Amino acid sequence: MTASAATIENTATLENSVIFDGDAVRILDRRTFPAEVDWLIAHTPNDVAAAIRDMVTQSSGPLFAACAGMALAASQSRALDLPQAQANLAAAGHALATARPTNAHPRDAVERILAASAGATSTSEIVDVVIAEADAVARDYREASLRLGRAVLSQLPENPRVLTHCWMDAYLFGVIAAAREQGRTIEWVATETRPYLQGARLTAHSLRELGQKVTLITDSMAAAALSSQQGVGFGPIDAVLTAADRVSMDGCVVNKVGTLGIAAAAKACNVPYYALVEAPDPHAPTGADIVIEVRDPTEVLEVLGQRTASPLVTDAWYPAFDLTPAHLVTKIATSHGVFDPTRVADHFATDPDAYAAPGPRR
Amino acid sequence: MTASAATIENTATLENSVIFDGDAVRILDRRTFPAEVDWLIAHTPNDVAAAIRDMVTQSSGPLFAACAGMALAASQSRALDLPQAQANLAAAGHALATARPTNAHPRDAVERILAASAGATSTSEIVDVVIAEADAVARDYREASLRLGRAVLSQLPENPRVLTHCWMDAYLFGVIAAAREQGRTIEWVATETRPYLQGARLTAHSLRELGQKVTLITDSMAAAALSSQQGVGFGPIDAVLTAADRVSMDGCVVNKVGTLGIAAAAKACNVPYYALVEAPDPHAPTGADIVIEVRDPTEVLEVLGQRTASPLVTDAWYPAFDLTPAHLVTKIATSHGVFDPTRVADHFATDPDAYAAPGPRR
Repeated sequence: MTASAATIENTATLENSVIFDGDAVRILDRRTFPAEVDWLIAHTPNDVAAAIRDMVTQSSGPLFAACAGMALAASQSRALDLPQAQANLAAAGHALATARPTNAHPRDAVERILAASAGATSTSEIVDVVIAEADAVARDYREASLRLGRAVLSQLPENPRVLTHCWMDAYLFGVIAAAREQGRTIEWVATETRPYLQGARLTAHSLRELGQKVTLITDSMAAAALSSQQGVGFGPIDAVLTAADRVSMDGCVVNKVGTLGIAAAAKACNVPYYALVEAPDPHAPTGADIVIEVRDPTEVLEVLGQRTASPLVTDAWYPAFDLTPAHLVTKIATSHGVFDPTRVADHFATDPDAYAAPGPRR
Repeated sequence: MTASAATIENTATLENSVIFDGDAVRILDRRTFPAEVDWLIAHTPNDVAAAIRDMVTQSSGPLFAACAGMALAASQSRALDLPQAQANLAAAGHALATARPTNAHPRDAVERILAASAGATSTSEIVDVVIAEADAVARDYREASLRLGRAVLSQLPENPRVLTHCWMDAYLFGVIAAAREQGRTIEWVATETRPYLQGARLTAHSLRELGQKVTLITDSMAAAALSSQQGVGFGPIDAVLTAADRVSMDGCVVNKVGTLGIAAAAKACNVPYYALVEAPDPHAPTGADIVIEVRDPTEVLEVLGQRTASPLVTDAWYPAFDLTPAHLVTKIATSHGVFDPTRVADHFATDPDAYAAPGPRR
């Protein structure tokens, strides 16, 4: 089965790619999408955690997967007594929250869900509360993504050309939804994002499904695109937009490896760089407090499972993320507004409804 | 036939990958090397020009190919009268010199060879002069590469760790030969260099053949490597070294796309960037005078002929080179020494023997 058959302009396959159906969690396998459309069936919360760890889903996916995993754990606790159900939910929460060290979404989702259920006095109550709160966390995240889209659009020209790296997931959908409600169009330049090719596979695909204009480049071409060199037939780029997996309270951005280089190039080329995150991470006072995950370097030696490096090469290095210091970030857009990186802590002192309606344009 | 069988520590396959055998020119196909070791047989100078245009060989390869192509044209002119031989050589020279717009090596080689033969008064004389001069151009280029290696090593710590992009070809062998004569060792970090993967295939392979330590990264990881982030287990990098396809007289560097982004990241991370070029190009007073070649964007949508992008993606962009402005270049090493980018024109006023012997260390 391939996804190439039709282009649907109002929805993207990846907008709903983690589904809890009451008995199991279905997770679209993003490692091979869109060449193949395979859904992994997770029968236990540990299966969900393994899917997060193995990058079956990534970016915003682990948040939705953590919510679905907790709902599944609750559903499977119906026959237990309350202490057993609490223990079962705590174990599921631990597995889901710790599946990947850098992405904080599952941890935050699990914390909120367990906190909501802390006062439950019966098994049926804790089951109901966890399922409802898991649903609320996911719904709030989508709504926050829309506010975040409005926030970043307030910084951009009417119909901007933007360069993006990797896969912004829910934020991408939020930006496009915000542009639509304001009657604005965006032209995209997307990096392919080695080694996992999230840009070539997920971002470019979803943008096309949503009827967006997108030009694909390799990661190495981002600086050339940003420099608007003479004679290359490529017009100026108005902004770089990326998601952030984490933003520290001092305004450092941790995101897919490659972001740092693009931010440095944007700075050198005088193009603003906006990072999008639902909220900065109060658990990370500084960038140095965020663990950078190093993954299996085999991925660097191959592309989609096919060896690309010389057979003589044995050593490679694969940091999954990099850390962009605050001075290379123009603004950080959150669900509460737009902040200078050094003032991103103001997110927590800002009215969350600032961008609940279409935002001001500058 | 694969090249994986043995590791030879004193020579690399790519050190002699264009061979004129008297009747034809054999050119190692770098597009598939080292996965396959195929030699293209060029029976005419136009075949050689086509091989240059189609990137069968690249980097320093077109220089050696242009020399070999001219020698072939001379060899095939033995039975002609002098005007016919001159016309034949001029036609071959034109085809070879114009095969690719950005790489100036073939043009310079052809100019020198034709200039040397301008006074010939017989067919046999012009044939002999062209063959001898073609050989001399190739030999001089190798010797210049060694001087250039000595020059750049004079800027580096005793046993440096360097990051390189794409494929420096003869310059790479010059740097390693210079290090060996000085008893120094270099630890390499090489980018894979999408879309053609010259780093993963040519650079990393040759370094391993020569017994060098090399760590492969994707292009997107260069900035992360340069930033020496805490907690990622990667030590500091002392310098970025790349070849330059062209250097303008105002110190701009045109090299494989991706160089600009790495230079910007190096600047942001306070790591020096050295570009290596035999000589700046007096035909290019400024960077704006250098045409940036845009190639078939299909390469961006696939890897080694296998589709990697979503089937819905139709638009891509593939500038083969980018232009790094002088302010992002620390020094330019030439066969005549090491220059501030803004003073690179001094190359032409400098004693070419400055680095004929092992150079001073700083």
